[in-house]
Amino acid sequence: MSITQPPAKSATSSDSTSAAGEVLAHLERAWNDGDGHAFGAVFTEDADFVDIRGDHHAGRPAIAAGHQGIFDSIYRGSTVSYSAESAREVAPGVVVAVAGGRLEAPTGPLQGVHRSHFTLVLVERQGTWAVTAFQNTLLMEQR
Amino acid sequence: MSITQPPAKSATSSDSTSAAGEVLAHLERAWNDGDGHAFGAVFTEDADFVDIRGDHHAGRPAIAAGHQGIFDSIYRGSTVSYSAESAREVAPGVVVAVAGGRLEAPTGPLQGVHRSHFTLVLVERQGTWAVTAFQNTLLMEQR
Repeated sequence: MSITQPPAKSATSSDSTSAAGEVLAHLERAWNDGDGHAFGAVFTEDADFVDIRGDHHAGRPAIAAGHQGIFDSIYRGSTVSYSAESAREVAPGVVVAVAGGRLEAPTGPLQGVHRSHFTLVLVERQGTWAVTAFQNTLLMEQR
Repeated sequence: MSITQPPAKSATSSDSTSAAGEVLAHLERAWNDGDGHAFGAVFTEDADFVDIRGDHHAGRPAIAAGHQGIFDSIYRGSTVSYSAESAREVAPGVVVAVAGGRLEAPTGPLQGVHRSHFTLVLVERQGTWAVTAFQNTLLMEQR
């Protein structure tokens, strides 16, 4: 690109993938640290979260508290890894990503490996990306 | 509001609810008619759909064909009703909605009533609302 041509303002596919990657890395670290506050911190105040049971949690405080609850009980000591399968800018400053999740629980009633697919809606707020919607569904074959 | 003040340009909460309602009514009609093409028609060409099995369908053709497949087999003769629980404009021309679904299958291996929660991402394209992401999860208590 010539230096007389500034880069386009809209996010490229690469920017969308990078945004999703940054957010997923944050969520992974928070989960693996068992830190519900840190998990919630990347969500917008008014975010929606639909979990694998189909339950709808509205707002960052409910999302943070709900995750601390599972980190302290059924998912204690569990680890996750996430990878984006797709990431698209659907409007300026809004990215929709679909990602795969792998959760390993070392003990308890959910001991084992669980895989899921989730949709994330990311919005740019003051130069950083935040999650404003998240829905997670377990892959059927493992139910 | 004084007539000297024009209405704000951004969508109001009422606009978001109305957008979600229109799209949900379209999806209900298409499902109840068993019409996969009509079901797919309200999605963007590049939409993402994650179904209750956790399977990821990328693009309108896959979404339409996948629905025709279930309308012709396991969900033949079934009816759905949808209602929006929340609808928010997350950026100009982008609405995130969370809705409840009730599906009744009259016969077959899935005979009965199934409830779910789903997240919809709606984008405004040439003055109409289209679905660019949809993820659906069955409520756990009925599994």
